[in-house]
Amino acid sequence: MFSASTYQGRRSRLASDLGNGLILISGNIDAAMNYRGNPYHFRQDSSFLYFSGLDNPGLALTIDSGTGRSILYGDDLTIEDIVWVGSQPTLAEQAKQAGLDEVRPMDRLSADVQAAGDKLHFLPPYRGETILRLATWTGRSVEAIQAGFSEGLIHAVVAQRSLKSQEEIDEMTWAVDLSGRMHVSVMREAEEGLHESDLASLVTGMCEAEEVVPAYGIILSKDGQTLHNHYHGNTLESGQLVLGDFGAESRMHYAGDITRTFPVDRHFTNKQREVYEVVLDAEILAIEACKPGVAYKDVHLHAARIIANGLKDIGLMKGDCHEAVAAGAHALFFPHGLGHMIGLDVHDMEDLGENHVGYSKDVQRSDQFGLAYLRLARKLQPGFVLTVEPGIYFIPELIDQWRADKKHTDFINYSALEKYRNFGGIRIEDNVLITEKGYQILGDPIPKTVAEIEALRYIV
Amino acid sequence: MFSASTYQGRRSRLASDLGNGLILISGNIDAAMNYRGNPYHFRQDSSFLYFSGLDNPGLALTIDSGTGRSILYGDDLTIEDIVWVGSQPTLAEQAKQAGLDEVRPMDRLSADVQAAGDKLHFLPPYRGETILRLATWTGRSVEAIQAGFSEGLIHAVVAQRSLKSQEEIDEMTWAVDLSGRMHVSVMREAEEGLHESDLASLVTGMCEAEEVVPAYGIILSKDGQTLHNHYHGNTLESGQLVLGDFGAESRMHYAGDITRTFPVDRHFTNKQREVYEVVLDAEILAIEACKPGVAYKDVHLHAARIIANGLKDIGLMKGDCHEAVAAGAHALFFPHGLGHMIGLDVHDMEDLGENHVGYSKDVQRSDQFGLAYLRLARKLQPGFVLTVEPGIYFIPELIDQWRADKKHTDFINYSALEKYRNFGGIRIEDNVLITEKGYQILGDPIPKTVAEIEALRYIV
Repeated sequence: MFSASTYQGRRSRLASDLGNGLILISGNIDAAMNYRGNPYHFRQDSSFLYFSGLDNPGLALTIDSGTGRSILYGDDLTIEDIVWVGSQPTLAEQAKQAGLDEVRPMDRLSADVQAAGDKLHFLPPYRGETILRLATWTGRSVEAIQAGFSEGLIHAVVAQRSLKSQEEIDEMTWAVDLSGRMHVSVMREAEEGLHESDLASLVTGMCEAEEVVPAYGIILSKDGQTLHNHYHGNTLESGQLVLGDFGAESRMHYAGDITRTFPVDRHFTNKQREVYEVVLDAEILAIEACKPGVAYKDVHLHAARIIANGLKDIGLMKGDCHEAVAAGAHALFFPHGLGHMIGLDVHDMEDLGENHVGYSKDVQRSDQFGLAYLRLARKLQPGFVLTVEPGIYFIPELIDQWRADKKHTDFINYSALEKYRNFGGIRIEDNVLITEKGYQILGDPIPKTVAEIEALRYIV
Repeated sequence: MFSASTYQGRRSRLASDLGNGLILISGNIDAAMNYRGNPYHFRQDSSFLYFSGLDNPGLALTIDSGTGRSILYGDDLTIEDIVWVGSQPTLAEQAKQAGLDEVRPMDRLSADVQAAGDKLHFLPPYRGETILRLATWTGRSVEAIQAGFSEGLIHAVVAQRSLKSQEEIDEMTWAVDLSGRMHVSVMREAEEGLHESDLASLVTGMCEAEEVVPAYGIILSKDGQTLHNHYHGNTLESGQLVLGDFGAESRMHYAGDITRTFPVDRHFTNKQREVYEVVLDAEILAIEACKPGVAYKDVHLHAARIIANGLKDIGLMKGDCHEAVAAGAHALFFPHGLGHMIGLDVHDMEDLGENHVGYSKDVQRSDQFGLAYLRLARKLQPGFVLTVEPGIYFIPELIDQWRADKKHTDFINYSALEKYRNFGGIRIEDNVLITEKGYQILGDPIPKTVAEIEALRYIV
């Protein structure tokens, strides 16, 4: 964890931003997999981590926004606990590491929280267990908890967590560098006859060896056209593309989120290369467009036009690219957003409400198919870290539906599309820090040009 | 999944055992990790799997115990879902695979469930989300859901799931065989200077390569004296023992649960070997004592006496072994139960209540330290699959407390114990099927004698 003063500074600013009331931040408990005694790996709540750094289950934190006084709630281990899970730092030791003012047993929390009455601030709970615990602590109904989170607290938390400090950037760089090594291993090892799961096993193994976990479910598939595809059961065949979208979490739980797409064979086919170069152009030029003051929605639309233009060159789209993108025709091929904030969460702070994180009064969410999925749209600021991840996909179900509906026939050349039905999908993604002057791609460069990727196959 | 008739047979028997009322079995939904959109890997509810075989999130199942009629509730994917997660079999196709009679949309479930009134049977929910969903479906309070599960349904489910069919045993054998290969890999690769996490990475990688996950959190530590130790951050040093307790889940989600303990060096020291042989004797003789009609509590006590006797030979215990075990003195070294049922859950059906699964009217749970942790105590029946996993541990915190409290000074030689403070712990575990005549250890043999383990180090 960072030094106690880091967490003290964050809590102090949070208290001052809120101005009054009692802030309650609940840590996570273990999440039951198939029964309570067999939990998934423990993942602490990201806001709890941000304001305390403490990474054990069963804790909660209050901050009195008037006085700034912070209290850690929890229970020390009994000797029987120690037999099962081993020794841990005492609560007093944990409080000291985090610069917290006081420790109280968990059974005090309810009275302390209820004493705050309606001056209690808590964040929207995203786990059933947290909803139930908040209901118990506050004496409120489940419905009141689900509706009763504090927008003021959300805004104050988003304001801080959106701007990454240097120590956070260092941690994220570590995550990206490990993620990059995972991608290089996968690209090197890929060959005809392997299973997707053979490559996925490299990823999980490399994470485990560093005592970390993947930051999100591994996408590693010859069916890259399915955006969130976690199936790894296919055998790789010559002529296919493989899309790998995976990243490591750092030991302090900052995420890396990297995507590369590569051929099963040593070389891209000409057809693959043509589409790949369009995505790569879109990715590089979108990154270059990132700087403070630019709305990320405009960067998204910029990338969309590059994609539309490239697909026009290939013969799959037609007409004016600006008009095509304004109409949303490109979304047949690029149906998702260009990227999102990243930090302690891979979609940073998504549980706090995507519109609070990625949108603003100036930039409202569109309801157009594709653009509606854009998670980050507002003006960029120095200290933001975000993903840039354009893609081109050939989704048979979507193509069939659009063609049947005669959608955007002015812009889409449906007959030429037939030859691409089994093409799959291509996405390229890096993690980008917004600096005072522009941008910086986090981490060591990860091969992404056609030449760089093909060269990996000759190094054994 | 198994054939439709397997699931039909199970539901039909369940309906007939219950006799009346509507049985509701909720499938799981995705479990939020750090926000709803970033879930842990999906794990279906084990009873839902047992009675339907269906492995997708967001389903529920009702069985009318009067008519035996079974209905699957869920919602088919929209085109936008398909863009994100790809195509899946339709609900109608899934219902057919499972031999279910009818499909209804999820929004029908609430009315159907409420029409059953107090004739509704459901199992105890172990996830917050399931509690909240059941409350919504039934219109009952969270407290009513937490208290309102059906004991009749629990007994009927336990009666079926406790007795494994041949096709289940085949599936479990697959899990044990993969688990055994994982253990052999770890034992072969272990050496001074590696991190525990390097060995753990072999385990996760081998699971991922088979498109499965570990059945529970990997224990792989030089600190084997901590029973459920999931930390893998230590560097292995000469003279240490490593305890590995891990297993794979099969593709149909049956668990393997295997433990082996081995030295970092090529050979056990004499001191290690002495203690190891005691645990090995206890394991082998406990397995040999398993047969229909024997209470597993007696097998546990048999193993405890072998351990007490062995520790007496080494000079760490003294006095009469029967008396020592009756008094619970052995639990300083062997503080946990000998084993548990295993099946779709590694502690099979633990969410249904351990006393319903492992105890009976004849065999009640003890409150003695150590014996109180015994999960399975009742008389064995052909078709039970259980773990046999004795161990000897040197837990400094527990030794210090017992010595300070002058506990069992007639049976424990505390002064001799000083030299064992940093010994660690040894556990050996196999998965055992109870047959008509006795027992069968599942899977291919996994090296467990001193000679077999040491021989692994010479094969490269």
